[in-house]
Amino acid sequence: MTELYKELENYKETDYYPFHMPGHKRKRDSAAGGLTECIRLDITEIDGFDNLHQAEGILKKEQENASRLYGSGQSYFLINGSTCGMLCAVFAVTERGDKILMARNCHKAVYHAAYLRELKTAYLQPDLLEEKDGKNPGIAGGIEPETVERALRENPDCAAVLITSPTYEGVVSDVGRIAELVHSYGVPLIVDEAHGAHFGFHDAYPASSVRLGADLVIHSVHKTLPSMTQTALLHWNGNRCGGGKAVQKGRAEKYLAEKEKLERYLRIFQSSSPSYVLMASVSNCMRLVKEEGFERLDRLLKDRDAFTEKIKHCRYVTVLDGGTDAAGRQAWRDPCKLVIGIADERMTGQELYDILLSKYHLQMEMAAPHYILAIVTMMDTQDGWSRLADALTEIDRELEAQDRKKQTDKCGYIETGQREQNGRKCFPWSKERNAPEAVMTIAEAYDAEQEAVRLTECAGRTAAEFIALYPPGIPLAVPGERFTEEMAECLLYWRKLRLNVQGIDNGFVKVTNP
Amino acid sequence: MTELYKELENYKETDYYPFHMPGHKRKRDSAAGGLTECIRLDITEIDGFDNLHQAEGILKKEQENASRLYGSGQSYFLINGSTCGMLCAVFAVTERGDKILMARNCHKAVYHAAYLRELKTAYLQPDLLEEKDGKNPGIAGGIEPETVERALRENPDCAAVLITSPTYEGVVSDVGRIAELVHSYGVPLIVDEAHGAHFGFHDAYPASSVRLGADLVIHSVHKTLPSMTQTALLHWNGNRCGGGKAVQKGRAEKYLAEKEKLERYLRIFQSSSPSYVLMASVSNCMRLVKEEGFERLDRLLKDRDAFTEKIKHCRYVTVLDGGTDAAGRQAWRDPCKLVIGIADERMTGQELYDILLSKYHLQMEMAAPHYILAIVTMMDTQDGWSRLADALTEIDRELEAQDRKKQTDKCGYIETGQREQNGRKCFPWSKERNAPEAVMTIAEAYDAEQEAVRLTECAGRTAAEFIALYPPGIPLAVPGERFTEEMAECLLYWRKLRLNVQGIDNGFVKVTNP
Repeated sequence: MTELYKELENYKETDYYPFHMPGHKRKRDSAAGGLTECIRLDITEIDGFDNLHQAEGILKKEQENASRLYGSGQSYFLINGSTCGMLCAVFAVTERGDKILMARNCHKAVYHAAYLRELKTAYLQPDLLEEKDGKNPGIAGGIEPETVERALRENPDCAAVLITSPTYEGVVSDVGRIAELVHSYGVPLIVDEAHGAHFGFHDAYPASSVRLGADLVIHSVHKTLPSMTQTALLHWNGNRCGGGKAVQKGRAEKYLAEKEKLERYLRIFQSSSPSYVLMASVSNCMRLVKEEGFERLDRLLKDRDAFTEKIKHCRYVTVLDGGTDAAGRQAWRDPCKLVIGIADERMTGQELYDILLSKYHLQMEMAAPHYILAIVTMMDTQDGWSRLADALTEIDRELEAQDRKKQTDKCGYIETGQREQNGRKCFPWSKERNAPEAVMTIAEAYDAEQEAVRLTECAGRTAAEFIALYPPGIPLAVPGERFTEEMAECLLYWRKLRLNVQGIDNGFVKVTNP
Repeated sequence: MTELYKELENYKETDYYPFHMPGHKRKRDSAAGGLTECIRLDITEIDGFDNLHQAEGILKKEQENASRLYGSGQSYFLINGSTCGMLCAVFAVTERGDKILMARNCHKAVYHAAYLRELKTAYLQPDLLEEKDGKNPGIAGGIEPETVERALRENPDCAAVLITSPTYEGVVSDVGRIAELVHSYGVPLIVDEAHGAHFGFHDAYPASSVRLGADLVIHSVHKTLPSMTQTALLHWNGNRCGGGKAVQKGRAEKYLAEKEKLERYLRIFQSSSPSYVLMASVSNCMRLVKEEGFERLDRLLKDRDAFTEKIKHCRYVTVLDGGTDAAGRQAWRDPCKLVIGIADERMTGQELYDILLSKYHLQMEMAAPHYILAIVTMMDTQDGWSRLADALTEIDRELEAQDRKKQTDKCGYIETGQREQNGRKCFPWSKERNAPEAVMTIAEAYDAEQEAVRLTECAGRTAAEFIALYPPGIPLAVPGERFTEEMAECLLYWRKLRLNVQGIDNGFVKVTNP
């Protein structure tokens, strides 16, 4: 237990009477069941409990603990999730109308920041990974340093660079090398490491971007660490930007100014009544990671290996973790993401997801056309791992028993092994293909007059809404981009697979009025 | 228990295993004490639990329950507090560079919205209230309809009007009349009713702005109702704007468009991983208000009356609830705010606050120079009320026993009864006085080059930072406003009283570089 949490627990046992908000007055009859215990811990900024927006006491200390743990210049608790960290980071390092160089597979929160800030956008395209069997299930690779280098040459006027590492599927970019490149252009690097809050605590896992030279790093502590939903961290590294390299004086001052701006936007985008329950959860999580992180991450690796061994004999159900990029380089994967593919298109990702849920009561994180995604963390149990291995083994056995026809039309694999075509229906843009053409900025298109057109008729029109598979919320179409035939085809295909697509209303999409 | 909460409680007892975030996997050993129970209820958007940002199931139903309870066109759960509701409301009804007509005593979140949106601001000045004894303890009154009418005549180009009602001290404006006036100019009215989520459920309490014709209303459910900190509601009334009056077709369509914009900004400003614990708390709160609200509010009135009766004989400690405005009209006060003044300046608000805390373990909401503020809600107990009455009686008795000198220099009352001078040191602007002159917009000044100057030397310079007493967070100085001698005097006075002032750093304030 951390000091903050201990104080909250102690406080609820005292005779201090609350003539302040919250209105539940910590009284048991204001809630029911487990929620009562949350209510009992739920205070506001009363004497002795500091103020998140002007931290000078216990919250300052707890944030310093997080900073020490990750090795950041300064760390901030976020109680409105990584979403808010992304807004704050982008606002801190850009002015209205600036250009941002960002990975095309960023979370929509980054696009929202670009919209609010009326930024011009240039994109870093990730590669599509090819698995050992020569198939491409539509998993984006990392952002290659060469891609960043080329883009920086083409966009030397960009105000910041932002990449997502790891991706939703756990693919990690070479952040150290990218940070060096970005800093050589004198701009800051923001890394959306929302899915990598557990990085840096064990050698078998990737290092943390905080220590690799990124200037601003966002961590969703609730995603892969034991903290409550909606909690996150924002790390600021401006005081030692450039990955330890010599920093020119003018530059350092610029970064210091950015810290003040960062804190301004934290005050703006976060509730002025932050939840102590959420903050206590983050602080407790930091303590647990510090004290037990290595052992728990070590055990997770062993559990994962045992699991992989157990389902190794499966014919159709396979762990996808050997992907290579166009240059044949092995992708670097986070062990906390378990991507399970289905060989020979014997079922879709959604079908496997549904069976695991309904028959085995195993709730997956996400279904993609050709795979499912599980998040495994240091809190998983032997029981959980066993149940998943047993379920997959049983499903695989049944697939083998059935003489079920290949469903090429349903799954969309084209079995030539040609990278160009493989991922096409799943994700129509990637490094090797032309990205959709942006004919307006996000803000111009999102604020323009709109009309709704059928998906089948959208090609050639300009998107006026984000369209994304959720989760993970990475937009296929961004306002201002011209729909291609391939994008329309991809969207129709996603709908056919009953995937959860945001931004399509009853078969219609929003486009700008020409 | 609501359906949402029941489902969460049920779910934690099932054998569904989470291969998804949050990383704590709902496991008991990922937390300690009461936090364990929060963790057990903490899920993400898994099957069957809907998605706040695209609500179609259980969250849609729960939000509809809130809408029915308040009588709104549509209601939205907010998990990033009223702060986020204010940002969304302002962004939905304005474009960049528009003018907003807002009460000068708004919460800083409104100013933040004006900053982000680069709005021009025109202000509605509240009156300062005079208590029965002719004193003016610095409590702002409501916004008079006449003030709004005059301001609308002077600013017919404003895109929206925003007022705070009730104020932090519980003073309510005539929202119905103001809504009519505002609508006659064809613009929407936003009411920050953060402190009035309990309005409209009992005749002895004010009616809710939602039913009085406001177009957008923000409620902090955690402030005066039994819900967890950081929870709030945003009510949209665009479909029946104009307080039930006939609405021109063009106008109604405009409002419908605003609803889509509103939902866009809700997606932007709120975490894409909203906490189910917070959402369940809001829904349970709605249920409790619906089923027990009237009885509990009724009992609260009786408890409050009994309390007032008990301390009636006190000589120095008095309940301030009889304030009148400049025209001699009685201010309309919310019974959930208990403002306790100290007659004859026998002690400062902070001193009374400190004694209640340290000696009696009674935690107040806030200390102002001449009074303290308690929030009382439907969850308060007889014990709480008694302890407060007994403590105040004892303190009063001691004051009487002591031959303590009046501390006019310390408290700053000028005992002439002249309104002009009374509230001066506490709040240097009000309807009767000139507001500080704004020489730049908020955005221009906040983004300008800054320097720090001593408080004693700030008069005549342009503020580049918000300065506010916290709580409540209403800015005394707004970026772009020129400091007057009186403002500097007020700030020095606040510091002398050890009040919690945000925006002053070690006696220095930020001003723009000339």
